[in-house]
Amino acid sequence: MAERKNFRPKVAVFGLGRIGNIHLRHIVQSSAFEVAYLIDIPSMLEKIRNLIDNYCLKDTVVCSPEETDEILSKPTLDAVVICTTVHGRGDLIIKSLNSGKHVFAEKPLALTEEEVVDCYRAAKTNNKTLQCGFDKRFDVSIQKLYEKIRCGDLGTLRTIKLSARELPSTCTKEYILSSGGFLTDSAIHEFDLLVWLAGERPQSVLAFGHAHNPMIKECGDFDSVNVVLKFPSGLLAFIENFRGVPYGYDQRYEVLGTKGCAVIENPKESQLCLWDEKGMHSDLMWQQALTRFTDAYRNEIEHFAAVIKGETDCIVKGEEVTYVSRLCASAMESLQQGKVINLT
Amino acid sequence: MAERKNFRPKVAVFGLGRIGNIHLRHIVQSSAFEVAYLIDIPSMLEKIRNLIDNYCLKDTVVCSPEETDEILSKPTLDAVVICTTVHGRGDLIIKSLNSGKHVFAEKPLALTEEEVVDCYRAAKTNNKTLQCGFDKRFDVSIQKLYEKIRCGDLGTLRTIKLSARELPSTCTKEYILSSGGFLTDSAIHEFDLLVWLAGERPQSVLAFGHAHNPMIKECGDFDSVNVVLKFPSGLLAFIENFRGVPYGYDQRYEVLGTKGCAVIENPKESQLCLWDEKGMHSDLMWQQALTRFTDAYRNEIEHFAAVIKGETDCIVKGEEVTYVSRLCASAMESLQQGKVINLT
Amino acid sequence: MAERKNFRPKVAVFGLGRIGNIHLRHIVQSSAFEVAYLIDIPSMLEKIRNLIDNYCLKDTVVCSPEETDEILSKPTLDAVVICTTVHGRGDLIIKSLNSGKHVFAEKPLALTEEEVVDCYRAAKTNNKTLQCGFDKRFDVSIQKLYEKIRCGDLGTLRTIKLSARELPSTCTKEYILSSGGFLTDSAIHEFDLLVWLAGERPQSVLAFGHAHNPMIKECGDFDSVNVVLKFPSGLLAFIENFRGVPYGYDQRYEVLGTKGCAVIENPKESQLCLWDEKGMHSDLMWQQALTRFTDAYRNEIEHFAAVIKGETDCIVKGEEVTYVSRLCASAMESLQQGKVINLT
Amino acid sequence: MAERKNFRPKVAVFGLGRIGNIHLRHIVQSSAFEVAYLIDIPSMLEKIRNLIDNYCLKDTVVCSPEETDEILSKPTLDAVVICTTVHGRGDLIIKSLNSGKHVFAEKPLALTEEEVVDCYRAAKTNNKTLQCGFDKRFDVSIQKLYEKIRCGDLGTLRTIKLSARELPSTCTKEYILSSGGFLTDSAIHEFDLLVWLAGERPQSVLAFGHAHNPMIKECGDFDSVNVVLKFPSGLLAFIENFRGVPYGYDQRYEVLGTKGCAVIENPKESQLCLWDEKGMHSDLMWQQALTRFTDAYRNEIEHFAAVIKGETDCIVKGEEVTYVSRLCASAMESLQQGKVINLT
Repeated sequence: MAERKNFRPKVAVFGLGRIGNIHLRHIVQSSAFEVAYLIDIPSMLEKIRNLIDNYCLKDTVVCSPEETDEILSKPTLDAVVICTTVHGRGDLIIKSLNSGKHVFAEKPLALTEEEVVDCYRAAKTNNKTLQCGFDKRFDVSIQKLYEKIRCGDLGTLRTIKLSARELPSTCTKEYILSSGGFLTDSAIHEFDLLVWLAGERPQSVLAFGHAHNPMIKECGDFDSVNVVLKFPSGLLAFIENFRGVPYGYDQRYEVLGTKGCAVIENPKESQLCLWDEKGMHSDLMWQQALTRFTDAYRNEIEHFAAVIKGETDCIVKGEEVTYVSRLCASAMESLQQGKVINLT
Repeated sequence: MAERKNFRPKVAVFGLGRIGNIHLRHIVQSSAFEVAYLIDIPSMLEKIRNLIDNYCLKDTVVCSPEETDEILSKPTLDAVVICTTVHGRGDLIIKSLNSGKHVFAEKPLALTEEEVVDCYRAAKTNNKTLQCGFDKRFDVSIQKLYEKIRCGDLGTLRTIKLSARELPSTCTKEYILSSGGFLTDSAIHEFDLLVWLAGERPQSVLAFGHAHNPMIKECGDFDSVNVVLKFPSGLLAFIENFRGVPYGYDQRYEVLGTKGCAVIENPKESQLCLWDEKGMHSDLMWQQALTRFTDAYRNEIEHFAAVIKGETDCIVKGEEVTYVSRLCASAMESLQQGKVINLT
Repeated sequence: MAERKNFRPKVAVFGLGRIGNIHLRHIVQSSAFEVAYLIDIPSMLEKIRNLIDNYCLKDTVVCSPEETDEILSKPTLDAVVICTTVHGRGDLIIKSLNSGKHVFAEKPLALTEEEVVDCYRAAKTNNKTLQCGFDKRFDVSIQKLYEKIRCGDLGTLRTIKLSARELPSTCTKEYILSSGGFLTDSAIHEFDLLVWLAGERPQSVLAFGHAHNPMIKECGDFDSVNVVLKFPSGLLAFIENFRGVPYGYDQRYEVLGTKGCAVIENPKESQLCLWDEKGMHSDLMWQQALTRFTDAYRNEIEHFAAVIKGETDCIVKGEEVTYVSRLCASAMESLQQGKVINLT
Repeated sequence: MAERKNFRPKVAVFGLGRIGNIHLRHIVQSSAFEVAYLIDIPSMLEKIRNLIDNYCLKDTVVCSPEETDEILSKPTLDAVVICTTVHGRGDLIIKSLNSGKHVFAEKPLALTEEEVVDCYRAAKTNNKTLQCGFDKRFDVSIQKLYEKIRCGDLGTLRTIKLSARELPSTCTKEYILSSGGFLTDSAIHEFDLLVWLAGERPQSVLAFGHAHNPMIKECGDFDSVNVVLKFPSGLLAFIENFRGVPYGYDQRYEVLGTKGCAVIENPKESQLCLWDEKGMHSDLMWQQALTRFTDAYRNEIEHFAAVIKGETDCIVKGEEVTYVSRLCASAMESLQQGKVINLT
């Protein structure tokens, strides 16, 4: 893509829920975009008005989903950021790309590998960027880990362990049922990181899981999953996902290589420690993705801006996102059948 | 001050050097202010133009210091942020207050206690806010420490230890000579924190110091200072300031009380740790105030906005700032004479 | 067992290799035993003489394995400590118990579950103690973890993760071939801890593994193993074992429950940290079991003394040791077949 | 001293209180000495009998202080370990040296510099070792710190900070009154470490102090002391001593040099950490010198054995111990007069 230095792309944001809100904040603060449209259902209107006031967005137009086609047909619109629910997400991505817009969309792009393939086909056909919201790749610690691996500081990789736990979910039954399941909705981040960090693809996977929360059990979903994977090189990997711990958003990453072992621990809400007659007490780890990965969310939006301005290539590749979609499906199959799945 | 909810104050920023730049960024990102004027000398013009481009400040006017009186006479201007060099800072503060503007100014407000007193007298006379840039008070860890002390979790205080070290200075000889000396220019933060945290004022002070850097020695200034203070309650305190360590911006805070000991350690640039055959290696601590205290800088600007909108009282009080100015002078006297100074 | 306060049992130590040496040191330093016999092959004689000199063991007799029957027939001998190689270990245990001696023996007691059952049957028949050398149970951190679990501080258990890595092995091919395999020789500690901490027994197990070291591969053994287990309560567990990391004896333990998550990290060889322009560097973790678990080794010997003096019951139960033997065999089966094994 | 390899010196231990007990344990466990005599007052007899039973000391004779001359006159006795109260300690040291015995004695050797000089003069005259019980020098972390300094890894030293805090004292008024004061009784360790680590002697000292404990105040002593020192090279130092914190035996050491900053933090009673909804909780730091410095106590006794066997020179030099005695006296003078003392 040719570089366009003083280009300030006009963007439309679809979906202003929790994650849409986050992305809007970084879009505004980065000053890299001009916010042209905010689109959501009428019940969100007041909330959106408040956002517009807070951010002093004088030239932004608020629209309802019915106006989507009209918005996408505007030649002055350069890009869209898609934060709607997963149902219909794939269609909106494809429609946007076919309208000649660059697209940033939340993960998963769609619930099946086929749809994800279709999305990237549309991106290619239209020669537009489609960036999937794998924010954790943009975390500074994880990026430094990735660089340490790639520059050989860890030697040949032997073991990767990724652990992702979160507080009890406030998700509704409807959300759980429509989310594609715990692995596709949440562990997808870890599957993406795993393959990206490993630099190779696994040959076997086994997932054990359980639903401790009765509502989740009723939905046939899981809230506790342990996955082991074996790679052709002999590299072994372990992914642990848990929804419903009492103490915070616990995200840890570890890579063992022949030269050493790199570990990313949880940062804390503050640096304050207290020694008293019971021991040492330090502050909570960050409680939410939105606080732990604030900088990562900011970085991925700035990366999207840089990509569509032609300053750099998108580091989240279509073939990676597509493969992760397939890997999630295989892990889900293993989880449901309780047996090892051989990957091809 | 009566609360004005939808009020978005117009602000002028004087001085767009390192710290002015920081404050401008947070002023823009907070969306709480409208940036009306940026004032600096002509040689800064190009840099300011770039800032205006980056932040898309369409309605901001760039002015030179000669236009100060004219700017201050604008009735639509609500507040000024003063980041010019310390010489003339006190005069500009007083002039701004006398023009009916709220003022946020960098520390030290002026080089003598008398001038600082004059500044706050002007604030009182004009019933305007004068907030001194003691950013460290707005650091989340330090604020939690302060709350722990005030709510009694530490019991009665016994010892306070504050340590502030920074990388080798890039300051010029001119800067050193005009800065008021190491204690007034730098340790002033620690003197402020000490008195604020202690909740009482010291009765004796002794400072030992040395200049390791030949240029600083030539200026008659110091780059290494150890200060001990004794308080009426028996509380003992220690402040250590060092300019020129090789490893980062090392800022640690410790308060011992009858119920426990609270400690604030240095956060690091990332959470990545590496185990290898030499031991464990973790990342650098933040290298600069601007990165370590980013959130504190943001918070103090948001506090200033809240204060002038009448939502809260300014937590940096005039009598505190004035007293710290006096305490710095006494510590400097001790440093130069090598003997204990009794404070009154 | 009736308590015998001033009783100082006479003990014979079979096998004075690496681990025998450790146990002898703690036997001597505890002053709880009288060291009557040291038994090993003639080539060890000089080494044993040095030990006797160092510890000033004036009344200790050195014997060769041929004299075993004669030693065991001594009515004044109370106990034996068995640190010989695993071949013949079970027979020596049974013979010792049948001679009316209390037995402390290194793990694994034998290579098959049947033999382990026979050992404990002999212990029961003769009403003597048989303590298996699961030293990690006697580590202070692990014991505190166990107590936290049992007293309910962690709530209901959800996830257990145990990681055990060690430096490259100096084991010979002969040792590897006769050791019973990596799981039985090394991961047995983690299987024991897992079941002991969990308080229940797993229903399914899957092990993935690889041999990175060519010699170990040639032996048909593994040096990298990842095991996942599922328990009836929904508890999931993960055990990772690795032989051949470059940075030390890395042993970490983690238990997640509904009330919190307990973690045991690696202690370091010293408390010294260094900050420099590359970051923070701390000392190595302990490099060997002998240094990391010195206190645990001491504690298990003192426990053995207390048990045979009738002061307490042995906390390493026969049914536990027997079950762990079976679990190791099932995990080995899974490792070799690459599929989930359902346990009964 | 000529090396005597198989020499197992006969030792007499004077004083079996808290610290005598510790030393006896390490003397027994090291197997380097033969414990010939234990000397204490009749009221300690039962306690000593128990020690003898526990350690199986069959050939040890228990004596009362009246028998001192007779014991010292035994030509077969090689060394004495003196753990009696500070009063009369100097006399006993000198008498022992004049009887041709090597001496290990607890700090302070005596309450005045003159007496300490007399002790070392007796050592020199009789060509015997006099080792002062500065156990902290034998702590592994502190020794590594010392080596890092001496090999130049820290560059030129700029700042040394030593902090020593302990739990509320159980000392009686009598003990306080006869101890020589807080600095001589306790801070003497830090003064010794400071001069040893610095490799130079300070030129000025100022001590601020307070007595929070009414009984200690009544004795005219202090329980909270902050000391700053200035060295000829420009090195600044800070020593903090506090008797009566609620959370443990808090001992921290820090040395800043031109190449980096080395820090020794407190090890903890266990490695167990717990994350819960209030934050992270780790175990207590060690609560007593006897647990924190167990290895240091063991090492200093083994050093004493090595020294009197001629294997190495004593690292605690007479001129160092003598100088520290003088420095304590100057710091005490400063503390009482509240002014800077210039040292010569």
